[in-house]
Amino acid sequence: MRMVLYELAGRDNFRFSPPCWRTLMALAHKGLAADERVPVKFSDKSPIAFSGQDRIPVLSDGDTWVADSFEIACYLEDAYPDRPSLFGSDRGRAMSRFVNEWTQDLLAPGLVTMLVRDEWDHVHADDRDCFRQVREQRFGDTLENLQAGRDHRVHAFRERLAPLRASLNTQAFLCGESPAYADYIVFGLFQFPRCVSAFPFIERNDPIYAWRETMLDLFDGLGRQVPSYPV
Amino acid sequence: MRMVLYELAGRDNFRFSPPCWRTLMALAHKGLAADERVPVKFSDKSPIAFSGQDRIPVLSDGDTWVADSFEIACYLEDAYPDRPSLFGSDRGRAMSRFVNEWTQDLLAPGLVTMLVRDEWDHVHADDRDCFRQVREQRFGDTLENLQAGRDHRVHAFRERLAPLRASLNTQAFLCGESPAYADYIVFGLFQFPRCVSAFPFIERNDPIYAWRETMLDLFDGLGRQVPSYPV
Repeated sequence: MRMVLYELAGRDNFRFSPPCWRTLMALAHKGLAADERVPVKFSDKSPIAFSGQDRIPVLSDGDTWVADSFEIACYLEDAYPDRPSLFGSDRGRAMSRFVNEWTQDLLAPGLVTMLVRDEWDHVHADDRDCFRQVREQRFGDTLENLQAGRDHRVHAFRERLAPLRASLNTQAFLCGESPAYADYIVFGLFQFPRCVSAFPFIERNDPIYAWRETMLDLFDGLGRQVPSYPV
Repeated sequence: MRMVLYELAGRDNFRFSPPCWRTLMALAHKGLAADERVPVKFSDKSPIAFSGQDRIPVLSDGDTWVADSFEIACYLEDAYPDRPSLFGSDRGRAMSRFVNEWTQDLLAPGLVTMLVRDEWDHVHADDRDCFRQVREQRFGDTLENLQAGRDHRVHAFRERLAPLRASLNTQAFLCGESPAYADYIVFGLFQFPRCVSAFPFIERNDPIYAWRETMLDLFDGLGRQVPSYPV
């Protein structure tokens, strides 16, 4: 079956969307790769108009399509059960959803506002006005003001990672001895700062940094071999 | 094999220790029950001196013993593999550890200080001086001051439950269609307020409240049929 992944793309092939990274890692974990990767812009979502919704990524697989990175992971798990499991079990799938909610609810908002001005530098030229307008309206301030003071705010962000840090003290990955989808959930978020900014959002002596380095090496360096900053 | 559970116990059979509740639920999930339950006091841990450590609970099973509720769950999973699984898979075990860290790191501290004066009312008569001294030294204030202002602080506590709440919007339990150890981790923490105070730490219209009611019904109402407050 022909597989097409519709991905958010910035200028010069910068790819900084966490859900898109989750899907790329999930595909690689399953030993799959999209036959075609279609870049989509913030300001022009016509490539995914067929799906009747505006979330990115969208994975099209033969006659079917799925939106939302967690739903895509569930689809891949069910459609390709003989390939390496993303969840380990139904219980693992349910707990992965909790990790997804934790990441989206507790980690993502703080990270986004620390990097929103840097992100703007990496969006597609056609998206610059749209991105600024939408983000400034959502957060109620200029991109410049939103990002200001991040040297202080980053400490609170790092503290919120405590449960991950503690887990990595006793196991190599969030999912145990080898990585699986819950690892890709957090890793996907971490690709966002790496792909838009040199801002050191994790400290190098943090066990989470070492885990992230290992994640960057997976699948022949899938996450490393893209335009990014060595943070 | 003879199984003995060493549990923290307060006055009048009040049992409000989260890790002890986790172990009680884990045992019930496995269809097991301790042959003997030995109450242990804060101020006198001589019953568990044999273990060479002071954490409660301790589970003694035949010739072996285990301390720390998460380690006890792992022991039960490995020692009784033919009984219902607590984790679902090795990946589920690893993610349960993450849930354990999240619960201990993010939820427990705020809950403890909101209820510490009420807790003191329920400790064993022999523990009252010791408990007050240790807690006031640890938190740097009187029990009364620590608990003050909880009507405001409880909002932040409820907000911290967001990832659990969001998960329960799409699945019946943290572990999916039926409860397992990660559910018992959070439920165990929630038994602490219920067993020491009438303070409404969750709102009745919260999906988490409905989940907790279901948890209280499990195993013939194991968590409900103890001295407690209907919160």
